[in-house]
Amino acid sequence: MSLVLNKAELADYLVQVFPQVHEDFVIEDLTETTITVRLVVADRHLRPGGTVSGPSMFGLADVSVYAMVLARKGRQSLAVTTNSSVDFLRKPIGGADMIAHCKLLKLGRSLAVGDVLMYSDGSDDPVARATMTYSIPPVGSAAASFG
Amino acid sequence: MSLVLNKAELADYLVQVFPQVHEDFVIEDLTETTITVRLVVADRHLRPGGTVSGPSMFGLADVSVYAMVLARKGRQSLAVTTNSSVDFLRKPIGGADMIAHCKLLKLGRSLAVGDVLMYSDGSDDPVARATMTYSIPPVGSAAASFG
Amino acid sequence: MSLVLNKAELADYLVQVFPQVHEDFVIEDLTETTITVRLVVADRHLRPGGTVSGPSMFGLADVSVYAMVLARKGRQSLAVTTNSSVDFLRKPIGGADMIAHCKLLKLGRSLAVGDVLMYSDGSDDPVARATMTYSIPPVGSAAASFG
Amino acid sequence: MSLVLNKAELADYLVQVFPQVHEDFVIEDLTETTITVRLVVADRHLRPGGTVSGPSMFGLADVSVYAMVLARKGRQSLAVTTNSSVDFLRKPIGGADMIAHCKLLKLGRSLAVGDVLMYSDGSDDPVARATMTYSIPPVGSAAASFG
Repeated sequence: MSLVLNKAELADYLVQVFPQVHEDFVIEDLTETTITVRLVVADRHLRPGGTVSGPSMFGLADVSVYAMVLARKGRQSLAVTTNSSVDFLRKPIGGADMIAHCKLLKLGRSLAVGDVLMYSDGSDDPVARATMTYSIPPVGSAAASFG
Repeated sequence: MSLVLNKAELADYLVQVFPQVHEDFVIEDLTETTITVRLVVADRHLRPGGTVSGPSMFGLADVSVYAMVLARKGRQSLAVTTNSSVDFLRKPIGGADMIAHCKLLKLGRSLAVGDVLMYSDGSDDPVARATMTYSIPPVGSAAASFG
Repeated sequence: MSLVLNKAELADYLVQVFPQVHEDFVIEDLTETTITVRLVVADRHLRPGGTVSGPSMFGLADVSVYAMVLARKGRQSLAVTTNSSVDFLRKPIGGADMIAHCKLLKLGRSLAVGDVLMYSDGSDDPVARATMTYSIPPVGSAAASFG
Repeated sequence: MSLVLNKAELADYLVQVFPQVHEDFVIEDLTETTITVRLVVADRHLRPGGTVSGPSMFGLADVSVYAMVLARKGRQSLAVTTNSSVDFLRKPIGGADMIAHCKLLKLGRSLAVGDVLMYSDGSDDPVARATMTYSIPPVGSAAASFG
């Protein structure tokens, strides 16, 4: 039940594995079962009307649960997303960053499940809710597995 | 049960409403209950390893169902996504476009539901499956509604 | 943001509308945005092996969110489930009741969304997670609506 | 890609493993990637109003995908449901049996995914759509695994 990577180590590792997108995400907080991740909103995350797009919120939820799994399983982890459900609840606030609060519900040998609530920075009403399931291949396998 | 917009009209309208992303998507086929949409894969759609990213597949599914709803309800439609589920089944083929086959399961007064299977171009095994639910506000309302 | 039915009124109303199943469920706690519901486990809720079945957990999540909506919208509400996602996380404890903790994430004019975590009574690890979306027809309409 | 159990063998095996509920379900058709299952509707499957209940539809979808996995993996399979999403599209026809058409989308070493469309017998409009994911433990492991 303890972290294999601390917040700084996790942030460093995400820069390595996601060179394209690491500027989008900031890890704000990390505990043994929760992580808070900020999406630094830029033009590329917006849809017409100026609010954060669905794919950007999907990406934020996905990165949040993946980072939580890495923090617990370590750098060798090659987890891949196998399932996701997302509910869009309210219109995001235009121009505001998006904050994801993720809770790890399960970390098994082969499956991990995390729940995510996403908020426009400064608001108390959730904009979206997501659950992500990751398949975790056995340590030492050569590549990510889709089960 | 008939189309309000034909394939060419629908393509034109998507250029207007999605100026940022319309180059990503090509409508390949349209019937009264189905639509086929191609994601023209570029670097920005890839994750490390060179395959299409989860958020890009989410976006493809979302655009496919949205375009299907527009084709049936017309340009005034302000539908917003309220729910989605996505299952990732296989690793996409590197460098291949992604083809989405969408079927409209329901088009009610206030809710539309579409099912999507996504394939790497040239392959018969689905890479991902998605269902998208759209909330459709009454015609004449001033803005999109999240229900 | 206030309750239209209190805990006792809500329990009475569930007896009326669910005569077949009201003995299965006990409302343990109710606030303006949360409800706790106990599934009193009997043989009919079990699958081979003696643990609570998937359909029984689905039913518990469904009743929990429905009861929460009734408590806020009142008896005239004819909400119908339009979407659900359920993740099964761990094997339930044999013979134990199941406790659902539901949180209302959204209560709009036409859609309500609730999140549910389900536990075997006496355990701190969630057995299942569910999200339920309800479509709420306008007050005065003659029948439940599927949107 | 071939069946390990044929339709009759599969039906016999379901009687053994689901003694409580096997009378509810009839396997109508089985191919290497599809199965059709009938829910023989009785009073216990109905909700107030006389239509098939949500938990009954969930159970039908769950049994359909499980039976498909058994037919392909054989009797030793101890698959457990890990994830489900269900969309309820229309009110079922009162008194009619429910027919589930299931398609196997993926059958990997450790995960299986099946898609299900459910119809009131005699109608062409789907009543509900479901996707079920099963976790398949390695052959020879002592008990079902939740991953």
